[in-house]
Amino acid sequence: MSFSDHIRSCNNYDPARVVPLTAGNARVGLLRRDNAEALRRFPDVFATEEDKVELVARGDITAVSRAIDAVVDTLVGDSQVPKWRNETFDVAPRWGEPPVFRLDRGAVPFFGTRAYGVHLNGYLRKGNTLCLWIGRRSADKQVAPNKLDNLVAGGIGNGHGVEETLLKEGEEEASIPTSLLKDAIPAGAISYRMETRLGIRDDVLFVYDLEMPADFLPKNRDGEIVHFELMPASAVLEHVRTTSDFKFNVNLVILDFAVRRGLLRPDDPEYLDVATGLHRPLD
Amino acid sequence: MSFSDHIRSCNNYDPARVVPLTAGNARVGLLRRDNAEALRRFPDVFATEEDKVELVARGDITAVSRAIDAVVDTLVGDSQVPKWRNETFDVAPRWGEPPVFRLDRGAVPFFGTRAYGVHLNGYLRKGNTLCLWIGRRSADKQVAPNKLDNLVAGGIGNGHGVEETLLKEGEEEASIPTSLLKDAIPAGAISYRMETRLGIRDDVLFVYDLEMPADFLPKNRDGEIVHFELMPASAVLEHVRTTSDFKFNVNLVILDFAVRRGLLRPDDPEYLDVATGLHRPLD
Repeated sequence: MSFSDHIRSCNNYDPARVVPLTAGNARVGLLRRDNAEALRRFPDVFATEEDKVELVARGDITAVSRAIDAVVDTLVGDSQVPKWRNETFDVAPRWGEPPVFRLDRGAVPFFGTRAYGVHLNGYLRKGNTLCLWIGRRSADKQVAPNKLDNLVAGGIGNGHGVEETLLKEGEEEASIPTSLLKDAIPAGAISYRMETRLGIRDDVLFVYDLEMPADFLPKNRDGEIVHFELMPASAVLEHVRTTSDFKFNVNLVILDFAVRRGLLRPDDPEYLDVATGLHRPLD
Repeated sequence: MSFSDHIRSCNNYDPARVVPLTAGNARVGLLRRDNAEALRRFPDVFATEEDKVELVARGDITAVSRAIDAVVDTLVGDSQVPKWRNETFDVAPRWGEPPVFRLDRGAVPFFGTRAYGVHLNGYLRKGNTLCLWIGRRSADKQVAPNKLDNLVAGGIGNGHGVEETLLKEGEEEASIPTSLLKDAIPAGAISYRMETRLGIRDDVLFVYDLEMPADFLPKNRDGEIVHFELMPASAVLEHVRTTSDFKFNVNLVILDFAVRRGLLRPDDPEYLDVATGLHRPLD
């Protein structure tokens, strides 16, 4: 493994394997060609052409979402979408624009709609040593079971804001009180585009840093994290460099932290690949 | 003006207007088509084809550099390159690889070879206010005269390292002692690709942050900066948002600082464009 391997595996997207999903004149998703083909049998909802799929279901956001839910139900029945997550994400051409529909989280990679998350680097200094709180994901997580994770991380569900999601997830995942989470500092965003078994992940992660009190011990409440450990940040970085123990995108969040904090320095042969590889320009 | 306007103007590169400059199997530059045409009259040095220009001068780095210098001399005489800067940059396929030749700084955009610089954000807290030291460039600078600048900024000349350049420029431009500059923290790299009147700028800027002592007053020694001012960082950011007073690429360095320090927050409509627009992936 190397740092660049992690970046490459999160950016293995190949435009030749994908057609756009459009709504009116805007692109709202990226359909792998096999997934696009699977939509031909729903002509009332999607018009599948050679080089694009157009959303043709009409009505307000509730009506369009309901029509797409019926499609997803069939796809779940046929195992083309893994299962209902019963948590929906807003789908819009760009962040901040009005959503066109809401989509069950489980179907997001199938349609390749852009998804947004929040990740929190919880750090503190023990003497001269910068340390990071690292979580271990539960064995029954659908995505990346047993992998290492940031102190807090979660997807931004429909209608929820970035900070609101941070407060909710920080409380559920690590029992961090709102009064402390309010001090978290937004430190940028990571973006990547990745093909997985299910389709395309077109992900944007809002990154926050929070200096943790020395006596605070995170405790998970929602069963998603089984264990937290405070590790020297330099050891975390070496773990990223040499293993695949961290969840795929958490490697990128830690690399971003390492670059911003000067843990990774210009004399590292991979420095520029890391510093310029974590922020795929949005289109 | 907007933040995105600054990012767009530094990334106005259009691949259709450019052909690669190759050395062996590697690309080492990006020639605008008119500049490529101008090289047809030097067939001993460059083989100009329809879709690329190949470096054909042979010999060691000194011999190849000398052959290219003779070309540059003619181009300067014909005003196709502005003037000799008498400062050379290493040209290599990638950072850290052995250079193929050395090129006078004045000819870098003509050939579109990648150039590297170092920029230093000099900051301090006055009470609760985060402040930045801002310089005003001299009226006789060839690039961006009279524009506002970071506390320290300079190109990385051939054979020099990143930190070495920071120490040298920090001393010349702002009289910052080495003992203080050694505390500067590397915080990432900014990359952009820009067409100018002269050709293509394919630039990478190594970014450092340095907390300045409250009683330190920067003093310029090399005549390149006429005046330094300590400004609240929020005022600097608003100045970037609403004016073109900063040198084109300094806008990007300040935006990066603002994102990393949480001065720019996710509720700003331009947040994601900024956070994902400052780090063009290197090819």
